[in-house]
Parts: sequence; C-alpha cells; structure tokens
Amino acid sequence: MGSYENGDSPAAAACEGGVILGVDGGTTSTVCVCLPAAMPPPEAPGAVPVLSRAIAGCSNRNSVGESAALETLEQVMAQALTMASTDHSNVVAVCLSVSGVNHPSDQQKMLDWIRNLFPGDAKFYVENDAVAALASGTMGKLHGCVLIAGTGSIAYGVTEDGKLARAAGAGPVLGDWGSGYGIAAQALTAVVKAHDGRGPQTNLTGAIIRKLEISSPDELIGWTYADPSWARIAALVPVVVSAAEDGDEVANTILRDAVQELADSVVAVVRRLALCGEDGKDQFPLVLVGGVLEGNKKWNISGEVIKCISKVFPGVHAIRPEVEPAIGAALLAWSHLLKELKLENGS
Amino acid sequence: MGSYENGDSPAAAACEGGVILGVDGGTTSTVCVCLPAAMPPPEAPGAVPVLSRAIAGCSNRNSVGESAALETLEQVMAQALTMASTDHSNVVAVCLSVSGVNHPSDQQKMLDWIRNLFPGDAKFYVENDAVAALASGTMGKLHGCVLIAGTGSIAYGVTEDGKLARAAGAGPVLGDWGSGYGIAAQALTAVVKAHDGRGPQTNLTGAIIRKLEISSPDELIGWTYADPSWARIAALVPVVVSAAEDGDEVANTILRDAVQELADSVVAVVRRLALCGEDGKDQFPLVLVGGVLEGNKKWNISGEVIKCISKVFPGVHAIRPEVEPAIGAALLAWSHLLKELKLENGS
Repeated sequence: MGSYENGDSPAAAACEGGVILGVDGGTTSTVCVCLPAAMPPPEAPGAVPVLSRAIAGCSNRNSVGESAALETLEQVMAQALTMASTDHSNVVAVCLSVSGVNHPSDQQKMLDWIRNLFPGDAKFYVENDAVAALASGTMGKLHGCVLIAGTGSIAYGVTEDGKLARAAGAGPVLGDWGSGYGIAAQALTAVVKAHDGRGPQTNLTGAIIRKLEISSPDELIGWTYADPSWARIAALVPVVVSAAEDGDEVANTILRDAVQELADSVVAVVRRLALCGEDGKDQFPLVLVGGVLEGNKKWNISGEVIKCISKVFPGVHAIRPEVEPAIGAALLAWSHLLKELKLENGS
Repeated sequence: MGSYENGDSPAAAACEGGVILGVDGGTTSTVCVCLPAAMPPPEAPGAVPVLSRAIAGCSNRNSVGESAALETLEQVMAQALTMASTDHSNVVAVCLSVSGVNHPSDQQKMLDWIRNLFPGDAKFYVENDAVAALASGTMGKLHGCVLIAGTGSIAYGVTEDGKLARAAGAGPVLGDWGSGYGIAAQALTAVVKAHDGRGPQTNLTGAIIRKLEISSPDELIGWTYADPSWARIAALVPVVVSAAEDGDEVANTILRDAVQELADSVVAVVRRLALCGEDGKDQFPLVLVGGVLEGNKKWNISGEVIKCISKVFPGVHAIRPEVEPAIGAALLAWSHLLKELKLENGS
C-alpha cells in the first residue's frame, strides 16, 4: 500500500476515487455494503473489495411504514460510511434494492428522497430485488436471468441494452405452482384428496400429520386457516422432498410439476429477451436463488430445472450466487456507473 | 276449518300438536320458519304448511361475536312464534343450521344454550348448513348427497342410518378447484401465463381486463392482493362461462376441469356411503346448490357434472331445491322428531 501522506489511513486510501453503496432492504433485515468505486471488474466473488458492511432492521415500508423504513435506510448507509472511514461527500453511486418498492412511482419517490441525502453529483439507482439477486450471481453484469424460488417464485431477466422481462411471481392466487408455497399447497391438497376418497393414498399423509402434530387430515382445514401466512405453508417443502426421495409417487409428481413450472418461467423470459441469441444456442447466465433451489438434496430440484431448460436452450449456464444481495446491489451501481461514464466519454 | 272454541284463531288451530322451528343462520341474514308438527310428510315444495317466517341479521359468531349471534337467534325464533300466534311452550322441535358452527364442541354449546330457552321436553338439533341444504332438496328425507358450489365447494352425504361423509370444502389453499373461487383463480392464472409467455393466448385476457377495468394483466397482481376476499375472485365466474360459450379453448378447459373436480367429490361421497346400493345402480338424490351450479347458461356446468357422475352411478337423481334452507332445517327437525317418536314407540 506504500506510505500515506496527510495522515491518510489505509481505509481512507481505499476510498480514494470515491465509494459505492449497495443496500439490500428486506423485511427481516437491511444490509449496506461499501465498495471502492475505483476497483477493477471483480471476476470472482472473493475478489470483491468490501470496505465495510452495516446491518439494520426492517426497511419494508409495507411492514413498518414509510418514515421508519427511510430512517433505517438512512442510518444503515451512514453507519457503513463511518465504518469505512469516509462520509457522504465521497459517495459516487448508490443502488437501493428494497422489497416493497415495486411501482415506478414508488421508485421515483425513493430516488428523490435519496438525492437529498447526498451532496454533489452522485448517481442513484433503485432496483427490483430480483435484479440485485441476478447481479449477485453475474458479479454485476447486466445480462441474464435469475430464478428465485423460496416461499414465492419469479423468473426475471435483463439484457445489456436494458430490456426487462418477468414470468410468474404473481403469488398463490395467480398460480405460482413452482414456489415453495405452491409445492406445499399441492401436497396438502393431495392429503385432503386421499383422505376424502378423491385421490390416491400417499405417504405425504403420515409425514405431514407428524410434522404438524395433528391427529387427522380433518384438522388440516383448521390448521390452514388458523394463520394464512404463505411462509408457514411453504415450510412444508422439505417434507414433500423427503417423501419423494422415499419413492412416494404423489410427492414425485408434485415435484416434477413444480420443476416444469419453474423451467417454463425461465424459458418464457429467455425467449422474450432472446438471451440465448438468434440461433437459441448462445450461452446465458441463469442465477438460482431461494430455498426450493438449494441443491443439497438427493431429489435435486434445481438440477432438474436446469435439465429441463437445457433441452430448449442448451446454452444455459447455472450460477449460485456466492455473494450476498447487498453486494449484488453495489455491483449493480458500479456497472450502471461504468456504463454512464462510458456514454459520457462517448466510448 | 270449522268453528273455534275458546276464541282459538285459525293460526292457533294449526299450532295444535305443537310447532317446529327451522333456523338458517348466515352471515348476511338469519331466517326462521315455523311449521306445524302435526303435518303430513310434505312430498312437494308447495305442500309445506309454513305458519310464519321471520328474518333477522347476521348470526355468524365469527363475524359478530357469540353473544350478538345468540341474541339474534333468540329474537328471530321469538318473532316467528309471535307471528304464528304461539309461544315457546308450544315448540316440540328446533333445528338450527348456523354457519360458523363446525366443531362438535361448538354444536354441544349451542345445544346447551337452546335447551335453556325452551321449557319442557322439546327436541333440539344443530346441523351443518350442508345438511340443511340437502334437506331443502329431499323435503326432509335424510338420505342422499348435496353438492354446493358457490364461492367455495363441498360435497356432503348422509345415509338414513346417520352415516356422514364429505369431500372437498377445504378452501382454496387445499385445492377446491371446482368452486367459484377455483374457476376464477384458474382463469386469472391463465391470463397471467398468456401475458408472460408461459401459456396460450386466450380471450379471457380481454374479457377480464374489461370486467376489472384495468389496463393490462400486469395490474392483476395489485388487483388480487388489494383485497384477498374469495368472493371477489369468484365473482369472475360468469366471465369465464361467457368466454367458454364463445369458444375460447382455455376457458373451456378450465370449466371441464372444474366439472371433473365437482363430479369427483360427489362420486367419492356416494362411494364411501354406498348411497348407490350394493350394485352401484340404486337411485339416490343429488341436491345441487350454489351460483356455479345454476343451470340457466348455454355452458351448463351442473348438467355436465350430472353427466359425469351418471357414468359412474347411473342412479343419480338431480334435484334443485325449491324451498329455502330454513325450511330445509325445519323439515330436518321434523324428520329427526318422527324418527325419535318411532324409536320410542318401538315401531
């Protein structure tokens, strides 16, 4: 690092050329990371030079209200800057990826708010959390598709020239059957159908009854409506996977159908954005995120999804993010910034 | 009617031998009817000698709380008795069919409560509203199956020796796809899938967008989650039926699937209760209730359901109730009473 004139610390030296903030604001917590703007393109996750990382509570406006959400965001950014021994004046770009901010009008409000927090001509970006998840897999490159399958599911794609497309992600009423909620709801339906004589017997019955500590499928109705939270239903996915691994045909059919739904949503996005090139054979990144796609099971849902997609688009290149969404957001800010600088320089 | 001694009115004469009350307690309103206990078995709807009919507000304990619900029930019964020029001492049987009373413990509580309202040895019955709907079609006979398909759906069967079975009726999470909610949710899903490139184009898109006065399927997510009421979703069924009648293949598939689901639920109940006799060919009544089964459309959902069932059980005899559920409840009280008297007399 050499010597530091004027009492500059190593941290301050790293902040020369300005810093970038990436914020991942969720319902459980909010994370802000600070990166040096003058870093080389990080090809590998380990190469991201994180200067600081701050954590705060919920910043979902739908949960805590707008003013509390904004206060949390303001504090977590200030904390990250302090931890990196720098301040607001040194920020050149910020990317906020905050859940609950979906409409363009919300995004604009957010942009107006954040502009007033920082002096000078810093750049600001407000992104969908799916885009930040994509960037966390592509190390900031804005090209490819992300498939998120946790409690809900969504496929989201972006092209380098800024085109966007999504599929699924509409919630249970509108048929996200590949999501954790969808898989578990199908399993509960199969248990009810077996119980009242409309469907084949399944080992899901015993497994789900044991898991929920109820005595009969009759109690499922009460259990379901006692608390309508989707996450509570989706928490039954591991039971379905275990039953399928043990050879239960009903559970296997549910997982195969879910795989097809998830693959269909990716195929729809890739086709609409022509991510696979004109001949349909170009390589494109597919970032896989969420509990349903964790690949450490014998019944490998994400592996089957990729197999399904590669039959249509052989160039699919699966990536599991090794950095967190906040770094994805920061890399996104960095990419956007680089692009704007290139445009300004006419290159 | 002859002459009335001691100032007896014709109404009072009709009450000789005691009266029966039937109560249909719902979320919208509560109806109580009063019938003479000494009536002949009513073979036809027009032959039911209704002495009085009183109406009150909501008596669903889940909506207005237990004490308000009980007060409404108490008042509507007192009013019906006054209108029939009689009083509590003349009541020989009451059947309450109240929504929101599902568990045996709730039923027992209700029985204990109503026993204290009436002096002497009147008989009291608390029944599922599906059983009252069955009785409104079978004119009080306790044998057969009722299929209810409105916002939700349920198949419920009863045998003369008191065996019960149900199928479906578990709500959207647990897969009531033959219900009004189920049909409409499938239609909304088809629109979303067509829009994001996962499914075939369908005329449902234009029809639903016009009906909901939105500008694009993108707005469906917001529309759906603005109000999670199932009835609001189910109100789209007529749009699906119209699209199917106009030849839309997606809408036709949704309705055919719903028909199969509804038929499956009836077949499961009939099979479990052996309502069709040992050879599977006995005649049995199937009472059809609810908006989805109203038979005045070109695309005749109930007609198709019956066709489907009759392939398995040719003895199915479809009935649309011509009397209201409160009369069904009263006829149920009357049937129960007759049975108990026969048992007491050893006949």
